[in-house]
Amino acid sequence: MRHDAFLHGVVMRVAVVGASGYTGAELVRLCVGHPRLELAAVCAERSAGSLIEQVFPHLAGRLSMELEAFDADRIAARAETVLCALPHGQSARVVAELVARGRRVLDLSADFRLRDPAAYAEWYGPEAHPYPELLAEAVYGLPELHRAELAGARLVAVPGCYPTAAILAAAPLLRAGLLATGSLIVDGKSGVSGAGRGLALASHFAEVGEGVRPYKVAGGHRHTPEMEQELGRAAGRAQRVSFTPQVVPMSRGILASVYGEPRDPSVTSDELRAALDAFYRDEPFVTVVENGLPDTSHVRGTNRAHVAVHLDKRAGRVLALAAIDNLGKGAAGQAIQCLNLACGWSETEGLGGVAAFP
Amino acid sequence: MRHDAFLHGVVMRVAVVGASGYTGAELVRLCVGHPRLELAAVCAERSAGSLIEQVFPHLAGRLSMELEAFDADRIAARAETVLCALPHGQSARVVAELVARGRRVLDLSADFRLRDPAAYAEWYGPEAHPYPELLAEAVYGLPELHRAELAGARLVAVPGCYPTAAILAAAPLLRAGLLATGSLIVDGKSGVSGAGRGLALASHFAEVGEGVRPYKVAGGHRHTPEMEQELGRAAGRAQRVSFTPQVVPMSRGILASVYGEPRDPSVTSDELRAALDAFYRDEPFVTVVENGLPDTSHVRGTNRAHVAVHLDKRAGRVLALAAIDNLGKGAAGQAIQCLNLACGWSETEGLGGVAAFP
Amino acid sequence: MRHDAFLHGVVMRVAVVGASGYTGAELVRLCVGHPRLELAAVCAERSAGSLIEQVFPHLAGRLSMELEAFDADRIAARAETVLCALPHGQSARVVAELVARGRRVLDLSADFRLRDPAAYAEWYGPEAHPYPELLAEAVYGLPELHRAELAGARLVAVPGCYPTAAILAAAPLLRAGLLATGSLIVDGKSGVSGAGRGLALASHFAEVGEGVRPYKVAGGHRHTPEMEQELGRAAGRAQRVSFTPQVVPMSRGILASVYGEPRDPSVTSDELRAALDAFYRDEPFVTVVENGLPDTSHVRGTNRAHVAVHLDKRAGRVLALAAIDNLGKGAAGQAIQCLNLACGWSETEGLGGVAAFP
Amino acid sequence: MRHDAFLHGVVMRVAVVGASGYTGAELVRLCVGHPRLELAAVCAERSAGSLIEQVFPHLAGRLSMELEAFDADRIAARAETVLCALPHGQSARVVAELVARGRRVLDLSADFRLRDPAAYAEWYGPEAHPYPELLAEAVYGLPELHRAELAGARLVAVPGCYPTAAILAAAPLLRAGLLATGSLIVDGKSGVSGAGRGLALASHFAEVGEGVRPYKVAGGHRHTPEMEQELGRAAGRAQRVSFTPQVVPMSRGILASVYGEPRDPSVTSDELRAALDAFYRDEPFVTVVENGLPDTSHVRGTNRAHVAVHLDKRAGRVLALAAIDNLGKGAAGQAIQCLNLACGWSETEGLGGVAAFP
Repeated sequence: MRHDAFLHGVVMRVAVVGASGYTGAELVRLCVGHPRLELAAVCAERSAGSLIEQVFPHLAGRLSMELEAFDADRIAARAETVLCALPHGQSARVVAELVARGRRVLDLSADFRLRDPAAYAEWYGPEAHPYPELLAEAVYGLPELHRAELAGARLVAVPGCYPTAAILAAAPLLRAGLLATGSLIVDGKSGVSGAGRGLALASHFAEVGEGVRPYKVAGGHRHTPEMEQELGRAAGRAQRVSFTPQVVPMSRGILASVYGEPRDPSVTSDELRAALDAFYRDEPFVTVVENGLPDTSHVRGTNRAHVAVHLDKRAGRVLALAAIDNLGKGAAGQAIQCLNLACGWSETEGLGGVAAFP
Repeated sequence: MRHDAFLHGVVMRVAVVGASGYTGAELVRLCVGHPRLELAAVCAERSAGSLIEQVFPHLAGRLSMELEAFDADRIAARAETVLCALPHGQSARVVAELVARGRRVLDLSADFRLRDPAAYAEWYGPEAHPYPELLAEAVYGLPELHRAELAGARLVAVPGCYPTAAILAAAPLLRAGLLATGSLIVDGKSGVSGAGRGLALASHFAEVGEGVRPYKVAGGHRHTPEMEQELGRAAGRAQRVSFTPQVVPMSRGILASVYGEPRDPSVTSDELRAALDAFYRDEPFVTVVENGLPDTSHVRGTNRAHVAVHLDKRAGRVLALAAIDNLGKGAAGQAIQCLNLACGWSETEGLGGVAAFP
Repeated sequence: MRHDAFLHGVVMRVAVVGASGYTGAELVRLCVGHPRLELAAVCAERSAGSLIEQVFPHLAGRLSMELEAFDADRIAARAETVLCALPHGQSARVVAELVARGRRVLDLSADFRLRDPAAYAEWYGPEAHPYPELLAEAVYGLPELHRAELAGARLVAVPGCYPTAAILAAAPLLRAGLLATGSLIVDGKSGVSGAGRGLALASHFAEVGEGVRPYKVAGGHRHTPEMEQELGRAAGRAQRVSFTPQVVPMSRGILASVYGEPRDPSVTSDELRAALDAFYRDEPFVTVVENGLPDTSHVRGTNRAHVAVHLDKRAGRVLALAAIDNLGKGAAGQAIQCLNLACGWSETEGLGGVAAFP
Repeated sequence: MRHDAFLHGVVMRVAVVGASGYTGAELVRLCVGHPRLELAAVCAERSAGSLIEQVFPHLAGRLSMELEAFDADRIAARAETVLCALPHGQSARVVAELVARGRRVLDLSADFRLRDPAAYAEWYGPEAHPYPELLAEAVYGLPELHRAELAGARLVAVPGCYPTAAILAAAPLLRAGLLATGSLIVDGKSGVSGAGRGLALASHFAEVGEGVRPYKVAGGHRHTPEMEQELGRAAGRAQRVSFTPQVVPMSRGILASVYGEPRDPSVTSDELRAALDAFYRDEPFVTVVENGLPDTSHVRGTNRAHVAVHLDKRAGRVLALAAIDNLGKGAAGQAIQCLNLACGWSETEGLGGVAAFP
């Protein structure tokens, strides 16, 4: 792969910070398979000094690199671009140090996703955002909505997993003016990997392996303002979202079921469907599924989204659906898609994989 | 167990019709463990002649009976009460034959759930209901709403699994007049056993074992009118329900997430919670869970329901939640609960089991 | 249930020590459902002061008791019998204190399972066994092999989960002199609950939820000497066991595949099968399965074992199989079975449940 | 990708026959991602006329082709190489027709795996092999053992999934003369996809989703002679294998636990490990895992194998372990690896993917 890439004249050195988590592992996997990227460094504070294949044995035989503690000078010296998968709160400083050294950063935390500093303080505070000037510069990395802004972007805030699914399902309908309400319901179902690699009873197999349960309901989940921001931008007016996250016993995947009301009660299923079709016609990673029933198994391990929309005429409701892989289009895959756009490369570079179904 | 029961003077002979399906198996399990029931016959058309422990090896060593084809005269001669777990459409005739022979029937199909014959024709038709006079007599077997009617009932229509969960979550709020809208959203998540033992790609492990997906959305699922009927009765006015069923990779369990709007925008979480508490205070099988987060794992294998309610103040939404076992409180357990009530026995007889968690 | 039990003149007060683990929860579940037991105390060091239904929400509505720190005097004053589910090493002292106070103890740890103090020191040492005199008194609580000794027993060492499965599969063949070798292979597959409720990457859903893997192989697992002890007693001579434990993505269940060689190469399948049949003919909890293929799903949540034996004529091997629930017959169920025997009650009291299949 | 491939001067047109099964789907996935392959036709008898993305919705947006009934002339006209994933028995004729038309065939069925026609008749008969002359020509497609023969091969019999795992684990030890016995035990654990997409109770989620069970034990599984053939070739003398397949609740993966005895009782763990290390030192797809505990999750979706060996000194046993993906290295991945070798391409072409862990 190095061979082809050099042939084409472009290989970029990248670092992954936060490489010992699941999102980090997925970033590493995608970097290894990307024809224009060379993995220059992998950082993980607590595992520094270990080999990455000891921390993630699935890499054995494919990649051997020493994990190191993050140091802005050292990393900036070795990598042109940094993929940062640290927890929110920890990420902002690392991002700021790298941007200050002229490096492009794709930040997978929530630290730069909310454009309004007040919203940040409300949901992640009470402290104010530490780098409001960077906030102003950050691009919300959902290419289907912000492709133009991503070209050449220096700082990309890669969206959260649930927001990606919910926005992909509903934004085209809002933009087309088909939904009446300023208030949407998002019922999300996520695989357990969404909770990360940190040990917790909520990720303990015997607790969650054969049941389903909600958590952080009724305004308790921090992905809510992100959905409201982007769905509001799509609609051209403020949107309220009531979000219910739920964990289902699978490793990967998010299904978002978004409920709204038709603006025009006489709207037809076909008109709703046409809005999705039009919006996604040329999108390389989003498919409006034929049978209207997206399935997380069908996008597992990929950067793809399967979406659909239904009209429940009797009840006067619109149901928009999206299935993604929370670690793919919901995190690492989307980061690479943004990176491709920021660099002016083909958007699908390194992301062409078909889901390994079943 | 026979000993104690005879001591108390009551043992009733029962038959299970449709004993080769999952609901049938759960009925058999509960009958075996019930101190006042004696299993007199097990019927299954296609497996007639086989031993039940060949069809269900988990019964080996506990029960050995020959499955037989249903014959109304023979069954009526041997059983005082019949638990009927046939598919809708097939059930009505069997029920009618048994009732005509003076037998009590608990019908777990949908054939007698909809009180309005027009609703039956709309959802299950186009034919009219074959036994409208029986429809008039049938009691909707949700004891928490219809306990009084169940005393002495001759024909009980045991509710569907999704409706049981959705109604238990929302009916107390509607009855207390706390919800504004005549239109509710029910987002349901079910284990795969809900689709039965019949072979289908939609129940094939490799297709569904590690993903989540919707089916029969936007008015396509026949549990919709059942929810509308009972939630309407609780509210005292018509209710529209938009219902989205989804399959998650587990054998048993249903989580219903019901979305409504508060009638009074100034309602508090405590007031909503108080309505649930008041409604379920003396219920033996329903618990309003302390942390507000029902989990299907916590009711697995039982006739119990865990419910909760939340107010999403920001978004102006009420979220009511219920977790049940689709084969327990959602089918066989509830049938036995109804049987206990119809016979004037203690409601919890034979249903005292604690969930085998984890 | 209290009513019937008092009627029969026997209710025994029991305490569960180690009630915050999975085995503890299963003991509590079985005590609640047992007609002759009254739960007098539940102990758990770190959760002392909490209500048990907060620690285990599946108990909500069924049981409310405060967890307390263990104190030998207090517990001995309130309970006649103690079910002790502490980790090995921690259990021995608690057991000794209770026995010294005249209480019957069913110890689910490994502390009193190995009759030979030298074996204890080798596998659990280096320290010597702290209470060798109790070791001499302890009965290995596998009723199918040691029923007579259990009558009136004061201290029962409840077997480990893997040993229960392996011994039930192979002991009848060894006792009948049908196996040649002094060396057996036990290939065990366990559900994740076997690793307990303590947080560990090896029980983290995303790590283990969709794969299978070995651990502590080749003599590394402490259940090895227990199998050797009991299989040796059954054979009448020393047995070596090579044991390979493996974790599969399910909550409950153990399948043991035991490999040996026929003593007489001309032995037939029927003769092997006959030995199992004869051994288990009158056993209330063990079934020799008709099709020869035990399935953990068929015994889930019960105290039952499904066993089978096969002759691989071509390869000159005997394969003995057993499926149990690791928390049922492999732990808490077996403890109650032993308790029933120790008290002179019907062996099946409180253990009559049928598996909740599927 | 077409661009690069044409740049390098090689694009080969391939057809997948049996494209509506899971192995077929995996072949299609790998062809789509392979820089030197162009998918010219996809055949599936019963789905002929459907679009492949209707049969396999995970392909939607990535591939749209019409499935067609197989016709030797038409396929031979359009494809230079054919990947045949038909059931055994059905495959032989198709293979013969294609070979007769000068096409290279990679046959994933069992029809050409057994070199000895008598073995074929014994295990797949009673009829004799229909094409004994082709049998003589077929190469057993396990590159780690038969790389040289694969160069230029016209007919490759791609190994079965269990044999691949068992052979990779044990063959190096046999070839090095480290195992004493002519009799090995293979205890295999497979994901449910191994049973294919055909509907059966044994693949029905609720039956198998939360338990583990054996099937076709004690010489009943047709992968036995394949293991014996190849392990015998590696050992230089006949080997008997007693094989126990077991199904675990996961979609993909096989773990093989192979038990033998050391030839020299004084052999050390290090010597055993050294034999594996030496054998696999330069293998691109096989890793001897550092911690000795292969995990199917770590190779999922790839053509990789993780292997290990342990000495159980006490019991005098050697345990060799291998984890693969049954659809990857156990089927489609291996077929592509063989194809690369047959064509003289780089062996890893199109197979470079890292496992999508978790």
